[in-house]
Amino acid sequence: MVAALRRSMILGLDIGGANTKAASSDGRIGERIYLPLWKGAPLGAVLDKFAKLEPDAVAVVMTGELADCYSNKLSGVMSIKSAVEAAFNCPVHFWGVSGFDWKETIDLAASNWYASASLIAKEMGDCIFADMGSTTTDLIPIRGKPLAAKTDYKRLINGELIYTGMLRTNLCALLREAMIQGDVVPLSSELFAITADAYLALDRISEEGYTCDTPDGAGMNRDASLRRLSRTVCADLEEIGEAGALAIAEQAYDRQHNILVNAIQRLAKRHDLSVIAASGVGEDIIARAAHTAGMGCTRLSERYGRKVSDIFPAYAVARLLSETI
Amino acid sequence: MVAALRRSMILGLDIGGANTKAASSDGRIGERIYLPLWKGAPLGAVLDKFAKLEPDAVAVVMTGELADCYSNKLSGVMSIKSAVEAAFNCPVHFWGVSGFDWKETIDLAASNWYASASLIAKEMGDCIFADMGSTTTDLIPIRGKPLAAKTDYKRLINGELIYTGMLRTNLCALLREAMIQGDVVPLSSELFAITADAYLALDRISEEGYTCDTPDGAGMNRDASLRRLSRTVCADLEEIGEAGALAIAEQAYDRQHNILVNAIQRLAKRHDLSVIAASGVGEDIIARAAHTAGMGCTRLSERYGRKVSDIFPAYAVARLLSETI
Repeated sequence: MVAALRRSMILGLDIGGANTKAASSDGRIGERIYLPLWKGAPLGAVLDKFAKLEPDAVAVVMTGELADCYSNKLSGVMSIKSAVEAAFNCPVHFWGVSGFDWKETIDLAASNWYASASLIAKEMGDCIFADMGSTTTDLIPIRGKPLAAKTDYKRLINGELIYTGMLRTNLCALLREAMIQGDVVPLSSELFAITADAYLALDRISEEGYTCDTPDGAGMNRDASLRRLSRTVCADLEEIGEAGALAIAEQAYDRQHNILVNAIQRLAKRHDLSVIAASGVGEDIIARAAHTAGMGCTRLSERYGRKVSDIFPAYAVARLLSETI
Repeated sequence: MVAALRRSMILGLDIGGANTKAASSDGRIGERIYLPLWKGAPLGAVLDKFAKLEPDAVAVVMTGELADCYSNKLSGVMSIKSAVEAAFNCPVHFWGVSGFDWKETIDLAASNWYASASLIAKEMGDCIFADMGSTTTDLIPIRGKPLAAKTDYKRLINGELIYTGMLRTNLCALLREAMIQGDVVPLSSELFAITADAYLALDRISEEGYTCDTPDGAGMNRDASLRRLSRTVCADLEEIGEAGALAIAEQAYDRQHNILVNAIQRLAKRHDLSVIAASGVGEDIIARAAHTAGMGCTRLSERYGRKVSDIFPAYAVARLLSETI
């Protein structure tokens, strides 16, 4: 009776536009795969791989429906939903912005933050749940329950979705101009460098932490990042030197920090909250912003382990399902 | 003796990162080909096609060396120079930032504006030569001779290179946030929509004028552009409606206008100039900015014809060569 001895395995999936993440409700499995849907990445093949883990049930959240390979969100949700249902033989439960008990298919759009914040509401109480991923940062006020708006558009307006991330943010979206050797230099509007380049140049991520495509297809190493940073001001690295390239990186880092501090302070004031629960690959960046904003901060890596913090929505939706079945 | 009756044909080439342009010194030939070098577009094949025109001499300017397929500008210049030399059997003359008589290969980098402004200096005298292309805008003060700095980096600092264009500019580089139905909505930092989408939605370019890739690979039509504009605020077109998408387009247009007006005024004051010579696919946008800035304006399309204005650097370098041989 080996089967009966096996503990029930519930797998949570978080299918984003750039990354797909998987976690088991017991925290043992935790995986992130760079899978850019807008480039036609093989979602089905990756899901088939996860199906080989033979989960007893699967819980799913998503944000990938915004990827511009889909003409609108509903068609994105339906495509992702079909792919998951085709890959698994076990029961598959989708979590929407009203939980597992959703009515309209569009309710499954942009639902991953709601799973995370629902679990945090149960386990940590009132706080701002902050999850900084490769691409975006969720700031979810929790008072008894998650209070954020239910669409990405409304969350942008409320400052509950900050479209800046640890890796993929185009530097020209952060910085209009950089101060280099006493000159104010406007940045090019191309996709020449991203936050991963700034953080790698500043030794705040490792080469292994650069888990997305490079803008120019060149290397994920410090020299290549310094060259990309130089290109943002139409310069060779030899023209502005390492000090010039690092100045751009530092200013991008500062600007992102200030954006996060302002957003946190705005929400903390509006909802009278004083504690941050920080998670995601940018957990350290959030913790620093919380400190500057004068907020208390709990890192989810300390409470749940680093692996789980990095992919918290996948873990959270698995946990939420495990508590209902 | 048919050959002797044939007038000497001098072909000018302007090889940019996104477009390659060709013009004859007599203005009869004028062609623009979208040829994104950073995507590995077939420069050699296009040059072979121009070689079939059997020019007697070729004059070349470039800016394509900044494309991020090249590790630095020198390797970009050398690669482009080799490609041109391989394609033509006739004499090929490269124009650099000191004219045809250059010393260092790197002097050929970012030289196209200098050819245009040198011709305008001869033919129109003191003014600001303004050339708005798909990607960037050159603003070159002319007092006796072109006065702009000789590298893109220094021109950015001086406000002589404005990295904003008629077609390819990522909207998030122009607008941090848009006002939509009374809400201030921050824009996503993805490449979801470009200025071509704003101008097409506003009927300021035609579908045929959308001569670059769409960000999502979808259509070059007004509905597809409205969808892309909506995506910049993480919304479906159905969520914000056509009025919402048009509000984003209008604000991008206004922002670009203000950037150009400020840059023109700054240079006009610094060099005591009161006239603009406007050219490029964005000639109309420049003319409007000149008007707002209180400057006189001559459109090069009126003086040289529309075809020549759109690809002025290629025409200018052909003319400059024709006057030396």
